[in-house]
Amino acid sequence: MAKYNLLAEQIKEQIGRGVWMDGEKLPSLRKQAEQSGYSLMTVLHAYQMLESQGVIRSLERSGYIVTLPSKPSSKQLVQTTDAVSVNDFVFEVLQASRDTRMFSLGFAYPDPSLYPRQHLNKSLISAAKQISLTSALDNLPPGNPELRQLIAKRYAARGVNISPDEIVITAGALEALSLSLQACTKPGDWVVLESPTFYGAMQAMQRLGLKAITVTVSPTSGIDLAALERAFQSHPVKACWLMSSFQNPLGYCLTDDKKRSIAALLQKYSVALIEDDVYAELYADSPPLPVKAFMPQGNSMLCASFSKSLVAGFRIGWVAAGTRALDVQKQQVMSTLATSAPIQLSLVDYLSTKNYELHLKQLRKQLRQRKHDMYLFWQELLADVARVHMHEGGYFLWVECATHVDSMDIYREALRLNITIAPGKLFCLTDEFNHCFRINGSFELNQPRRHQLRKLAEFIRQCSRKSAS
Amino acid sequence: MAKYNLLAEQIKEQIGRGVWMDGEKLPSLRKQAEQSGYSLMTVLHAYQMLESQGVIRSLERSGYIVTLPSKPSSKQLVQTTDAVSVNDFVFEVLQASRDTRMFSLGFAYPDPSLYPRQHLNKSLISAAKQISLTSALDNLPPGNPELRQLIAKRYAARGVNISPDEIVITAGALEALSLSLQACTKPGDWVVLESPTFYGAMQAMQRLGLKAITVTVSPTSGIDLAALERAFQSHPVKACWLMSSFQNPLGYCLTDDKKRSIAALLQKYSVALIEDDVYAELYADSPPLPVKAFMPQGNSMLCASFSKSLVAGFRIGWVAAGTRALDVQKQQVMSTLATSAPIQLSLVDYLSTKNYELHLKQLRKQLRQRKHDMYLFWQELLADVARVHMHEGGYFLWVECATHVDSMDIYREALRLNITIAPGKLFCLTDEFNHCFRINGSFELNQPRRHQLRKLAEFIRQCSRKSAS
Repeated sequence: MAKYNLLAEQIKEQIGRGVWMDGEKLPSLRKQAEQSGYSLMTVLHAYQMLESQGVIRSLERSGYIVTLPSKPSSKQLVQTTDAVSVNDFVFEVLQASRDTRMFSLGFAYPDPSLYPRQHLNKSLISAAKQISLTSALDNLPPGNPELRQLIAKRYAARGVNISPDEIVITAGALEALSLSLQACTKPGDWVVLESPTFYGAMQAMQRLGLKAITVTVSPTSGIDLAALERAFQSHPVKACWLMSSFQNPLGYCLTDDKKRSIAALLQKYSVALIEDDVYAELYADSPPLPVKAFMPQGNSMLCASFSKSLVAGFRIGWVAAGTRALDVQKQQVMSTLATSAPIQLSLVDYLSTKNYELHLKQLRKQLRQRKHDMYLFWQELLADVARVHMHEGGYFLWVECATHVDSMDIYREALRLNITIAPGKLFCLTDEFNHCFRINGSFELNQPRRHQLRKLAEFIRQCSRKSAS
Repeated sequence: MAKYNLLAEQIKEQIGRGVWMDGEKLPSLRKQAEQSGYSLMTVLHAYQMLESQGVIRSLERSGYIVTLPSKPSSKQLVQTTDAVSVNDFVFEVLQASRDTRMFSLGFAYPDPSLYPRQHLNKSLISAAKQISLTSALDNLPPGNPELRQLIAKRYAARGVNISPDEIVITAGALEALSLSLQACTKPGDWVVLESPTFYGAMQAMQRLGLKAITVTVSPTSGIDLAALERAFQSHPVKACWLMSSFQNPLGYCLTDDKKRSIAALLQKYSVALIEDDVYAELYADSPPLPVKAFMPQGNSMLCASFSKSLVAGFRIGWVAAGTRALDVQKQQVMSTLATSAPIQLSLVDYLSTKNYELHLKQLRKQLRQRKHDMYLFWQELLADVARVHMHEGGYFLWVECATHVDSMDIYREALRLNITIAPGKLFCLTDEFNHCFRINGSFELNQPRRHQLRKLAEFIRQCSRKSAS
C-alpha cells in the first residue's frame, strides 16, 4: 500500500474511533507531516484521497474538516442485562441514573439541585487562586491539616471527641470504607455485615477475599443484638461494618442505647468497627451519635463524606480511624496515593464560612418535606398491597411488597417507564429481600412524575394480585 | 463530677487533641450551650473553671480564647524506622519528601517549580465557573467525554490509535494500574514484574494476593527477552506489568524492535499487558511508542497520568484499556466510584489550549539540562567507586555502587544530611539491588546543595573503601 494510502487509512480509523468528530478540523498539512513523519506531499495526497471519498472536506484557506456523520451519542437509556453478579447490576443501575431523562428513584444521592452549587464554585475559585508550589505535598495523606481540623470541630459540636490527627482525607466515603477494611483485615478473615446493607460492603468482601456473616436488620427496630453476639461467638470475626444512623437502604436510626450495646459487644469480642456514617448530617431534629462515640478508646473507624450533604462530584470523604490512622494512610499511598489538592483546599474555604450550616438547615427541611410527600403518595397508591417504611432523617423509603413479588420485575418495568428503583437484590447476598425495593425520597413530585409513578404502582398491584392467586 | 466539670474536661480533651489551637476562639457561651445541651450557667462555670486553670482566657466582650501552647507541629524531619516491609518503607520515604527543608532526590515527581501553575489555576477557575447540575453525572466512569477525546487526540498525534471509548479517567496512574490489574487477574494468579521495578507494582501484588515472577532489567539494555519468554513458558502467567519507556527506576527506554518483540510474546502466550507509561511525554527527541502500539487488537491496558508532566496534586490519570474498559470501570465503581468532576473539567479547559504543548517543550528542555548537570556532578564525585547510569528522556539517574555497599546505609546518612535518595531495596523483592539507588535529576544544583551532596559522596566513598578492604 502506498504511504499516502496508509496514512489515509489511519486517519479513517481515528475518525471511526471518535478521535475526530464530524465538523472537527484535522491537523494542518504541515502539522500532520510533522507528527506523522510523512512528507508534506504524502499528507496532501492522503487528505485529497479522503476528500474524494467524502470523509473530509477542504475549507478555503483553512484546512480540512471531517464530514462523516458522528458516532451516535453514547448516552442512551440503559439496557437491562441478565447480569447475575451484584457488581454488574450495581454498575447497570448507576449507568441508568446518569440519564437525565430518567426519574432516578434508584439513585443513592439526593437530588443534585439541593446542593449549594454557587457557594461551592466560589470556594473552588478561591482555592484555585491559593494553590502554591507545595500544595501537592501539604495535601498528601493524611490530607490537608486545616480540613482535618474543621472536620474535627464539627464532631466536637456534636459532642463527639475526634482528634484531627486520627482523620485521613479520602476520595469519598467509599474509599474510606475500603481502606479501613484493608487496614484491619487480611484475605480470608470474617467480617460481619448487616442484611440488607449498602452494596459497596458486599462488593468489598468479594474484592478483598473476605468472608461475610450477615446479621439481619429490621426496618422497624434495626439490628438484632442477640444475632450480632451469636455471630461474634460463632466465628473469629475481625471487623463489623455497619451503619447506625439512617441505615442504607432501610433509613432506620438506632437508639443511643442500642449503639452503646453494640460498642460494648465490639469491645467484648475485640472486633474492629467500620462505621459508615454518610447520612449523619441529614437528621430531622438532633444530630445522631455514631457508635464510635460510645467506644472512645476503641478499635473503630468512622467513615463519612460530603457527597450526600454538600456535593456529589468532588469525591471527598474521610475516616476518623483512631489508632488505625497510619495503617489507613499506608493503604491509601498504595492505591490512589492522595486526594486531589485543589478539592481539599476548596472545602477548607467553604467550611470556614457559615454557609455549610445555613445550607444544611435548609437541606434538612427540604428533605424532610419531600420525603414526606413521596411517602404519602406511595402510601396512597400501595397501602393495601405493600408496606412503605419511612423514618425521620435521611431520604430513603423502603417498600416491602408481598413476599411472592419479585422486585426485579418491578425494576424492569420501571426502566421501561424511564424510572429507576433500587431492588432488594442490590442489598443482600441472598434472595431474602427480593420482594423489597428502596426509593429515593429527595426528588420533587410534579405532575408528569406522579403520572409515571401511578403507572408503575399499577404494575406493582398487578404483580401482587397475580402471584397471590 | 459536676456537670460544669464534665464539660470543662471535655473541652480540655479537645484542646489536647488539637481540635482547638492556641489563640483560637472557643464557641460562644450561647453556642456551646446549644451544642452541648448544657445550660448557659453550666457552660459559664465550665469556662470560668478553664480560665482559672490557665487553659483559656476571656477577651473583653468577645468570648474566650485558648491559651495553652499549641501541640508541636507535626512537620518534622523523618524518623527512620527498622521497617522491613516495603510498604512501611515507601511510606517513610514519601513522608520524608514532604519536608520542604529536605533535598528530595528520592522523590518520584519532578521539581514542582517546573509545573505551569498559573495557567492551570486559570483553567481550574474557568472549570469552577462551568460546573453545572449534571457535572457529577457527566464525569462518572468512564470519565468526562471531552477529556477522553483530548487524550485520544494526543495519542493520535504520536501515531498511536486509541479510541476515546476505551479510555477510563482515574485518580492518577496509580489507580489506573491497580484497577487494570484487578480487571485481568484474581487472587493467586501469576503476574510478571520487572526487577527492579516501580514499588507500586510490588505493593499491588501483595495487596491483591497475586504471585509475582520477576524478570531482570538491565540499566544498559532493558528487559531480557529470553527470560521473559521463559517466565511465560514456566508459569501460567495472566498479566505482565512493565514500563517500556524511561523505566522507573532505571530510566531506560526500549527500542521499537524490542517493544515489537514483547508485543509478539504477549500475544503468543495470551498474557495481558499492563503498561505504565507515565514518563512518555518527557522524551528528549521524539515521542516513544508504547508496547500497546504494536498490539492494536491485543489484550493491553496502557496507563498514564498528568502527574509527572503537568501537575502533581490534581490526582488525575487514565487507562486506555481496550476491551477491558468496562471491567476497569466496574472495578472503579467499587473502590473510589469516580474522579473529581471539577478536576476533570479543569483539564479539559487546559488541554484545549496550546499551553500544554508549549509547557512540555520547555519542560523537556529543562529536564534534559538539569539531569545532565546532575549526572556530571555525580560522575565527578563518584566515577571511580560507582557507575552512574543516565539515559535520554525522563529525569532519573541510577547509581550502581560496588556490590558490597548497602544503599540503606547511604539512605540513612543522606537523611542525616537532609537529603533523600531512593535506595534499591524500594524497587525489588530481593536484595539484588541493595548496592544501587535512584536519584531525581530534575532539581537544580545550587551551591548549598552541591555542598550537601559532596558530604554524602564522601560517605559513599568511605563505604566503598571500607567494605572492600
